[in-house]
Amino acid sequence: MVRWHYDNIEISLRSKEEEKVFAEKFYIAEAKLLDIEAGKPIVMLNESEAKENGIYHGSRVLIRKGNKEAVGIVNLSSKFVKRGQIGFFKEFEKILEIKDKDLVEISPMAYPMSIEAIIKKINNGKLTDSEIENCIRDIVDNKLSEAEIAAFLVACHINGLDDDEITSLTNAMVESGGKISFESKYVADKHCIGGVAANRTTMVIVPIIAACGIYIPKTSSRAITSPAGTADTMEVLCPVEFSLEELERMVKKVYGAIVWGGGVNIAPADDKMINIRRPLRLDPLGVMMASILAKKKAVGSKYLIIDIPVGKGAKIEDNERAKFLANKFKAITKRLGITTNVLITDGSQPIGRGIGPALEARDVLSVLEGNGPIDLYEKSIIMAGTLLEMVGKAKEGEGAKMAEEIIKSGKALKKMREIIENQGGNPNIKKEDIHIGDCSYDIVSERDGKIEWIDNKNVSRIARIAGAPTDKGAGVYLWKVKGDYVKKGEKLMTIYAHTETKLTLAIEAAQKFNPFSFEKILLTRV
Amino acid sequence: MVRWHYDNIEISLRSKEEEKVFAEKFYIAEAKLLDIEAGKPIVMLNESEAKENGIYHGSRVLIRKGNKEAVGIVNLSSKFVKRGQIGFFKEFEKILEIKDKDLVEISPMAYPMSIEAIIKKINNGKLTDSEIENCIRDIVDNKLSEAEIAAFLVACHINGLDDDEITSLTNAMVESGGKISFESKYVADKHCIGGVAANRTTMVIVPIIAACGIYIPKTSSRAITSPAGTADTMEVLCPVEFSLEELERMVKKVYGAIVWGGGVNIAPADDKMINIRRPLRLDPLGVMMASILAKKKAVGSKYLIIDIPVGKGAKIEDNERAKFLANKFKAITKRLGITTNVLITDGSQPIGRGIGPALEARDVLSVLEGNGPIDLYEKSIIMAGTLLEMVGKAKEGEGAKMAEEIIKSGKALKKMREIIENQGGNPNIKKEDIHIGDCSYDIVSERDGKIEWIDNKNVSRIARIAGAPTDKGAGVYLWKVKGDYVKKGEKLMTIYAHTETKLTLAIEAAQKFNPFSFEKILLTRV
Repeated sequence: MVRWHYDNIEISLRSKEEEKVFAEKFYIAEAKLLDIEAGKPIVMLNESEAKENGIYHGSRVLIRKGNKEAVGIVNLSSKFVKRGQIGFFKEFEKILEIKDKDLVEISPMAYPMSIEAIIKKINNGKLTDSEIENCIRDIVDNKLSEAEIAAFLVACHINGLDDDEITSLTNAMVESGGKISFESKYVADKHCIGGVAANRTTMVIVPIIAACGIYIPKTSSRAITSPAGTADTMEVLCPVEFSLEELERMVKKVYGAIVWGGGVNIAPADDKMINIRRPLRLDPLGVMMASILAKKKAVGSKYLIIDIPVGKGAKIEDNERAKFLANKFKAITKRLGITTNVLITDGSQPIGRGIGPALEARDVLSVLEGNGPIDLYEKSIIMAGTLLEMVGKAKEGEGAKMAEEIIKSGKALKKMREIIENQGGNPNIKKEDIHIGDCSYDIVSERDGKIEWIDNKNVSRIARIAGAPTDKGAGVYLWKVKGDYVKKGEKLMTIYAHTETKLTLAIEAAQKFNPFSFEKILLTRV
Repeated sequence: MVRWHYDNIEISLRSKEEEKVFAEKFYIAEAKLLDIEAGKPIVMLNESEAKENGIYHGSRVLIRKGNKEAVGIVNLSSKFVKRGQIGFFKEFEKILEIKDKDLVEISPMAYPMSIEAIIKKINNGKLTDSEIENCIRDIVDNKLSEAEIAAFLVACHINGLDDDEITSLTNAMVESGGKISFESKYVADKHCIGGVAANRTTMVIVPIIAACGIYIPKTSSRAITSPAGTADTMEVLCPVEFSLEELERMVKKVYGAIVWGGGVNIAPADDKMINIRRPLRLDPLGVMMASILAKKKAVGSKYLIIDIPVGKGAKIEDNERAKFLANKFKAITKRLGITTNVLITDGSQPIGRGIGPALEARDVLSVLEGNGPIDLYEKSIIMAGTLLEMVGKAKEGEGAKMAEEIIKSGKALKKMREIIENQGGNPNIKKEDIHIGDCSYDIVSERDGKIEWIDNKNVSRIARIAGAPTDKGAGVYLWKVKGDYVKKGEKLMTIYAHTETKLTLAIEAAQKFNPFSFEKILLTRV
């Protein structure tokens, strides 16, 4: 066999006909199921047999069993897999419905078409709709290696994506996974770009909006770098892992739901990219926007409110950058047919007093009872009010008032209890039922002064080291916030943990990374 | 255990002390050797046990056995590897000298330091010496994933490397592998940036230079996208796979050697990068230069001649680009203490008549006998002559004449036979002894005309499809070259193959990708 597939020749030769040529060359082998998960579709081939067939380490092969097909990435072995055998990593059992000793066809494959698109973006070209579709489809179908996906992401990060490309990318991501829709034009959604600790507005806004008979199928994330995602906090009250069909059914019943976005199969390309983006802290603007918006479009959202917190210690520290991002979101959502409002909010300290799943869930229930941290209360009302105005439920300028009435009347709390019950939780749960870590430690102020800002990153760090989000009851409770006057020896915050070991580590972290900054009188000495 | 190592927190926490903290948390498991090669250091851990220890799919772990340490990338399994076990892919057997049932310590690891440098380059920062050293060391030590290496390469490609960075990268690559040196200031070397079919000047220059008592320890590559690398062609005459120590010993004995660069352990970081660069056709200028120059510096070269072929169908088609590259090479080699001359040569057709290992080896022997293709003869003499002038063996302007005399006197052929014998080949080999593929087909001209240029890429394509470089006797022999007048029906080239199947495929390719272009009288009709 000609070694087509390891060189440029093969790339330039590739056309529809040539792709077929590859698929027409094959050999037969017997399946050996390996109980190995690699997180990617690896097959083990016998080294000499594979090489005779022009297949090398890292080659892609097409595997056929009856009318089922899958793409595998080749690892080679000389003894573990004998001639005439093919070892399957676990990922294949489902895809190919394969059993031990089944016979399969193995064909060498050309590089996937999307490689050309990746090279084009590396060279700062503009990608067409179909090039972007190829990339997303090949990512979902595991046709691209991690190195190739990384190359795509870095190229998008450095060379950027324009509005056309971001729109294509969003649509391609939507098409790559499941979709639902509601026979109503009233489908609302919200998104926060993150970076502020606690900030559980979703859990206040969703019941307010749902109480008004507006669908709000909210998918939320778990913590990645924070001590709690909305999904982690909601999970304190009820299950959050549902299929897309279950989400649809639940929302059709009570208008609202808050589920973990990773559980429903929407925009799966995004999940594959996130593992590569994370260690490199790669957040290409266009990819980030497409990933957010695809998840809204896939659940049929028509009205969207986006929260961009800005301030010292937040994800975005610069107002100009926030405005740029806001306008970009408005431009793209307009193309996608989603009516959007963007709110730029104060991100210079956490929103709410508790940080960590259980502590945040307590704050949310307080707010829904009409009490709780004033910042969380007000922010939620403004955001929910804006949505109510957008869908035409409230007159302009009266949304916030309406939202507040829905809380004060107890309708929001009632709706939240319906949602909790609908998702399989205890609808009668009280704040006091929520367990907080038994080990605690008070951090007190070492000076008098007025608090200027509270570093979100440091608060998050301490809460995570205390055990959040895995230990639901772990975290930090803030006794003082921005603008408060503090005396030396007064409590600033309490750290909660499930074990003494974690508490000790968190206390050490709190001493090293103090989140509280005081206003200074003396600015500079000249 | 705190989930340090899957988020940004961990990254910012990392310091010498924190690195220690990670290494201090460990669990003990029993080795299970798996006969699997993954091309990267994968260990299989029991899923639940790993997760309890804060280790996830894709995590890096430090594995200790006695005083040996290695870094592994984690795959998880629930049944294949039991609690208390660790499965080792083949790569570890050597590194850790591990045997079945050996006990090892497993510790979760922080992200490697070089991640910070990669992020810096993605954001267009300038890397310091130590940042570049970190990257190269972590690549060699398998601490970076393929995705991370790809990110580094794409960032270098798009944002570029300046002269300081290229110099650091070269030095870091040299330090990452083996080095040899000769107690002589007369150590010469040559390099061609490639893209021209055949062009086996190395095999003529090395014996000429060595015949003058100048060390020339030449490491050459095998074909990647071409039908033959110098190593493939030399292998027709004698073995080419030697260790670095063997190369040193051989060169000290007869002054010259031509060995496969992949066999000696120089600049190993480059080998790891090439697998990622290839499918993406990523050739970041700085990385490419560092990779070339590191291999020269590692064998102690002090005088270097670089050949940049330019022309239609060559790697570089544009003269300005060639000059830019030439000046860049001169600037970097000056910093590295290597005296360099760059020759920009005609790359608009193959150099030599035969294309494919055996056919090229025949051309080389003809040239050393004082006959053979005139282009290969002249180019080799000019290059060897320049080197003789550079080291001071010939007066300025008299190098080529001296080189020609060394051929005419038979000294070059005699030296080549010494080199062949030194490398374990038959020193008495004759052209006729070299076996050419038994299946052949003549391609004849369909028109009269004068040949303007011959496309290197198409010639290479045909030769590869005929079976080169794997089938040593396969390839193409050119009967007509640039400037020749051809009559309709005259032979243009002959294709040779080992089997009829490959010959048929190559004939089809020759019809589709005709490499010969004729001069046109009519340029444009207005």
